[in-house]
Amino acid sequence: MVGVAVLGYGTVGSGVVEVIEQNNDVVSARAGEKLYVKHILDLREFPGDPYENKVVHDFNIILEDEDVQIICETMGGVKPAYDFTKAALLKGKSVCTSNKELVANHGPELLAIAKEKNCNYMFEASVGGGIPIIRTINNALTAEKIEGITGILNGTTNYILTKMDKEGADFAEVLAKAQELGYAERNPEADVEGYDACRKIAILSSLMTGKNVKYENIYTEGITKITADDFVYAKAAGMAVKIFGMSKNTENGTLAMVAPFMISADYPLYMVNDVFNGVFVRSNMLGDSMYYGRGAGKLPTASAVVGDVVECARNLGNNVPVFWDAEEAKLADISEVSRSYFVRAKAEAKADVLAAFPGGEEVVIEGRNDFGYFTLEMKEKDFAEKYAALGDKVFMRIRVEK
Amino acid sequence: MVGVAVLGYGTVGSGVVEVIEQNNDVVSARAGEKLYVKHILDLREFPGDPYENKVVHDFNIILEDEDVQIICETMGGVKPAYDFTKAALLKGKSVCTSNKELVANHGPELLAIAKEKNCNYMFEASVGGGIPIIRTINNALTAEKIEGITGILNGTTNYILTKMDKEGADFAEVLAKAQELGYAERNPEADVEGYDACRKIAILSSLMTGKNVKYENIYTEGITKITADDFVYAKAAGMAVKIFGMSKNTENGTLAMVAPFMISADYPLYMVNDVFNGVFVRSNMLGDSMYYGRGAGKLPTASAVVGDVVECARNLGNNVPVFWDAEEAKLADISEVSRSYFVRAKAEAKADVLAAFPGGEEVVIEGRNDFGYFTLEMKEKDFAEKYAALGDKVFMRIRVEK
Repeated sequence: MVGVAVLGYGTVGSGVVEVIEQNNDVVSARAGEKLYVKHILDLREFPGDPYENKVVHDFNIILEDEDVQIICETMGGVKPAYDFTKAALLKGKSVCTSNKELVANHGPELLAIAKEKNCNYMFEASVGGGIPIIRTINNALTAEKIEGITGILNGTTNYILTKMDKEGADFAEVLAKAQELGYAERNPEADVEGYDACRKIAILSSLMTGKNVKYENIYTEGITKITADDFVYAKAAGMAVKIFGMSKNTENGTLAMVAPFMISADYPLYMVNDVFNGVFVRSNMLGDSMYYGRGAGKLPTASAVVGDVVECARNLGNNVPVFWDAEEAKLADISEVSRSYFVRAKAEAKADVLAAFPGGEEVVIEGRNDFGYFTLEMKEKDFAEKYAALGDKVFMRIRVEK
Repeated sequence: MVGVAVLGYGTVGSGVVEVIEQNNDVVSARAGEKLYVKHILDLREFPGDPYENKVVHDFNIILEDEDVQIICETMGGVKPAYDFTKAALLKGKSVCTSNKELVANHGPELLAIAKEKNCNYMFEASVGGGIPIIRTINNALTAEKIEGITGILNGTTNYILTKMDKEGADFAEVLAKAQELGYAERNPEADVEGYDACRKIAILSSLMTGKNVKYENIYTEGITKITADDFVYAKAAGMAVKIFGMSKNTENGTLAMVAPFMISADYPLYMVNDVFNGVFVRSNMLGDSMYYGRGAGKLPTASAVVGDVVECARNLGNNVPVFWDAEEAKLADISEVSRSYFVRAKAEAKADVLAAFPGGEEVVIEGRNDFGYFTLEMKEKDFAEKYAALGDKVFMRIRVEK
């Protein structure tokens, strides 16, 4: 019997309890021991809830309970999750978390404690919801040198972009509908400005490099400026607009960024639509691989937490190695990267755009007062300078990823 | 130091040596101990090969060498691979294999020996080449009840179907070109008749059910009868033709089959083209997930073998559980399954086809002497009977998967 405690009885936490109970036969069989939820920590009471008698309000009950060997931290935020996690690991209890904020902020420290105490800190659910991308990197692609990871890591923005694409609607309109349906939060900033994806690509980048990639240093651009007009041109060019968290090993360090990109139909993430997530990995022996599934939601996220619980139960007293040191990774300067750009400009500014970016490709759509243009590949800093000089003659620019 | 022996210095075996040597820094770091290739078993000599001095011709040298703790079996075929594998496991040496034939024939027995001897029998490379689908099922989706697995599991046939689609060419013509390029073997039967995919879906089905699904009992249909004309209609309907290995848990047992299917553009495997493989998994908490990458080739396959080597090195003296019992799984009768069918028939037989399959949907292409038709959903046995009765009025039928 392995006792499990759940910290935070919100969406993910209640999902964890549901998965452990509903799939208990397979979960326990795979863990090698009967798993059961012993305590649920929450400030609130849950009268009438089938598990109300498991709810406690004092973390020390969990910390001091020797039956509890695995703790699921599904509270979110850094405080008090950090203190609870640290205390648990120091006691030799394994912790499984869905908390990307905490992992991105304190991953290396918490992993080092787990290693020292022969327990585990696992965070499959912190990136890509139910997609097993963390375990794939840590335990499956172990023969590979990973060269790059590109992910659609945020379901809310992917839903919004998919709707804008399919319905020709503008950002604000689709956001409002997404909020109505519960796909976007009332304060959508963390999603639409790319902050959520930024935490996630920081975690993936750290696992890719083995060093610490600080999310604060990752260039992050959201989707709020993308309009229905941009999609008109994307579609005319047979392309999609997606917001990527991207990280590549380059000669000059790790090139990490979050931004919208225009991609063609043969790009493996092109078909990742609606609330789905997808992660594309390039590595030196396998080449390209891709992982796709529900990147958010109660049960998919809870399933990832419980998958970690099973792995922790199989490894009680044994630390499963994770390579993520505290040493800071060197980040490459994104302004030095060469790529093509999509530019949408006023129709009357065509000569100026062609002069600024010669040799590119026009996208002609009859009867419009704007026009679309794909530049040749050029360095980001050179592009940015020339684009800025065009002032209000241009409406938008989106990076192109091939 | 963990010594590794490689059985069979062919394409995959030499790839295994290459991956262990070329990525030795990361591979050894992740294994927790220095990995090195001690012996290579092959009947041939390899004069001039950088590893020629490691080549031995007697398996007993490997079996009796206490430095060798992990053996990579990349020989293929059942004999003598089975004897070597069994002898190694009985000695407590872990075995990592790319040999689907052996795994499909003797998986449960070899897994039971590994369990008894506290070592491991791992076979990531036997299905999906470098795609970590086996580890995903065994070690990642452990909180899930898997309900179905559908895979594009054979790179050769996917390449052929992709070319037929893109170039409008006929099967024989594309096969000849594929043979020229080395994408198809001179005797292509195992691929084009679906036998290779059948072994692979048998392995995946066994892991899904936890029981033994015998490949001999899986209905298997190849792609040799598909013509350029069928693709004309598939494309007109916005669909693709793929050969799937498919397995679903149903009330009446495991529904397993290998056959060509017509799928629409929103099916997650639609974008899996050329020599790539993709595996689509449906499970009860996560819902749909998909795994995509190179399903064959020297280095991708070798990478999967070496990933297993790392996992074995991390678990020396410890059996990582795999749920695949010798007990035979009950297979469902495919003739009871309901689905829609694409039918291509002689133009003058339209009235007969409509009479046999009322209420379906026609695909009209002007100026042709055949026509395409999608039936309503109906049981396979009912469809088969009516289709047979149409005799030479019909050219082809392809199952439709949604």
